[in-house]
Amino acid sequence: MSTDALVALDVGGTSIRGELLRPARDAGEVVDLEVLERVLADTPRGGAEPDGDAILDEIERVCKALLDSATSHRVSVGAVGVAVPGVVDTAAGAVHLAGNLGWRDVPVAAELSARLGVPVRVHHDVACAGLAERTLGAGRGVRDLLAVFIGTGIAATLTVAGMPVTGGHHAGELGHVPVREPGLPCPCGQTGCLEVYASARAIGRAYAAATGRDDVTSRDVVAALGTDPAADAVWDDALDALAHALLGAITLLGTERIVLGGGLSLAGDALVAPLRERLLARARVAVVPDIVTAGLGPRAGVVGAALATLG
Amino acid sequence: MSTDALVALDVGGTSIRGELLRPARDAGEVVDLEVLERVLADTPRGGAEPDGDAILDEIERVCKALLDSATSHRVSVGAVGVAVPGVVDTAAGAVHLAGNLGWRDVPVAAELSARLGVPVRVHHDVACAGLAERTLGAGRGVRDLLAVFIGTGIAATLTVAGMPVTGGHHAGELGHVPVREPGLPCPCGQTGCLEVYASARAIGRAYAAATGRDDVTSRDVVAALGTDPAADAVWDDALDALAHALLGAITLLGTERIVLGGGLSLAGDALVAPLRERLLARARVAVVPDIVTAGLGPRAGVVGAALATLG
Repeated sequence: MSTDALVALDVGGTSIRGELLRPARDAGEVVDLEVLERVLADTPRGGAEPDGDAILDEIERVCKALLDSATSHRVSVGAVGVAVPGVVDTAAGAVHLAGNLGWRDVPVAAELSARLGVPVRVHHDVACAGLAERTLGAGRGVRDLLAVFIGTGIAATLTVAGMPVTGGHHAGELGHVPVREPGLPCPCGQTGCLEVYASARAIGRAYAAATGRDDVTSRDVVAALGTDPAADAVWDDALDALAHALLGAITLLGTERIVLGGGLSLAGDALVAPLRERLLARARVAVVPDIVTAGLGPRAGVVGAALATLG
Repeated sequence: MSTDALVALDVGGTSIRGELLRPARDAGEVVDLEVLERVLADTPRGGAEPDGDAILDEIERVCKALLDSATSHRVSVGAVGVAVPGVVDTAAGAVHLAGNLGWRDVPVAAELSARLGVPVRVHHDVACAGLAERTLGAGRGVRDLLAVFIGTGIAATLTVAGMPVTGGHHAGELGHVPVREPGLPCPCGQTGCLEVYASARAIGRAYAAATGRDDVTSRDVVAALGTDPAADAVWDDALDALAHALLGAITLLGTERIVLGGGLSLAGDALVAPLRERLLARARVAVVPDIVTAGLGPRAGVVGAALATLG
């Protein structure tokens, strides 16, 4: 009976993804994570605001279902790893702020491990996704990597000379890199942030404003490319903004590969090809790196939560 | 007789600075470089274009003067380190391109070591200056450091988690990070590069254009601040551009300290104070790091050439 299995969760504002995983190692390094069980659940909502307590209960339920299934797979679970969007203190096992989950200063690790009887570790979701892409995904083996996750917001994880960049202060906030002067206001309080132009949410809103429809999202923009000039214009604006921020990043960092993840990366070549074109047309000092979509797709957070917990 | 002394040179487009240095070590690490001799020479010019052969001869002359002086200091010189502005292949000891020196594919290390009878190593000048500030200057002990050198051009060296960032491709080209869309053309072929707005050369040119005088430099702008509104406007533009690029950099990197070096940093608080103000006024996601001027001043290149050669 293996004692090396673990439960990993990616807790988002709309869904909770959980997996029971068995790591395969080579010379001590994790080279694969076999999926033994999966659970996908809706994140509970308490009316207009997220209900933090209900979300914690649902996480407990998902974990218990996965822990219960371990016996039939003849594994025992040594730890639970949870990826969370927000300000996370991994060492303390606490989440200082997770707006989408209704949490402020919640000792998530202590609370869950008391309920589950298994050690629990809490990690930042984007850091997990970046770790996963670097270790087992589209950034595998790349020493100088920029993994960019574009969804409701935009964040990045940087790998420099094979080492993750954590920064003396919080790093990787690509969504709040300025791309326009002075630019549109961002909820963060700045103006001209990349996120205001190129997040999935911003793209959906810009298309809604252009078409007068309030039920459209970034997926509708991608679907209408080439047929609706309004969609083309919104997409072009987003790509121009993304090119500004990424040209700056690769010029500073000498990046070898850009991995694009998050919901918007499901656009695939509709995103990658025009972004590559823009960078090739503009860059004269930086060498334009490979640009690829994420290898682990929506599983990156779960895989990274497992890797961070094992590491 | 110490055999640990070395000769270090910083070869620029206008001057050549050479020093005979004796390292002091603590537990194997270089903790100080004692200056035994100094030479400052003009970089030879052959009319309008730089004369590469004459520059190499002058480097030889400066090195020989420093090597000859070693005997009187009772040291022997184990190596010569040369810092050069351009595209340098340190492993091969060759300079692929150094426009300001008139060099293209010159095997500088082999040529000089044949003339001098001492091993010679060649390094990139900004990498040297960054190494020097990180090791013995204003960035000493800082794990996440951005050292920015503003002179004719703008370049940076990045230190992340205590390690220098070299990039899979060439890194640190802060001067070619875009700050305006589409912005003014840059000699590199891009538009809107930081260097077009905030280098010492760009500031001098903008002031010349504003005043109709062709004999002014960035030093005149600094001297006229507070008395000439044209100087204030030029300086404000440069600082706005610098704030855009640096806000992007610190938001990505989580930088703990920014060290400002190069000729423009001689402006001191006239540069540091308004830059800090702009970053504090703008930043809502990144924590604004310490901003200080370089500790080694114009010696950073020489000190770094020595450190790079010893390391």
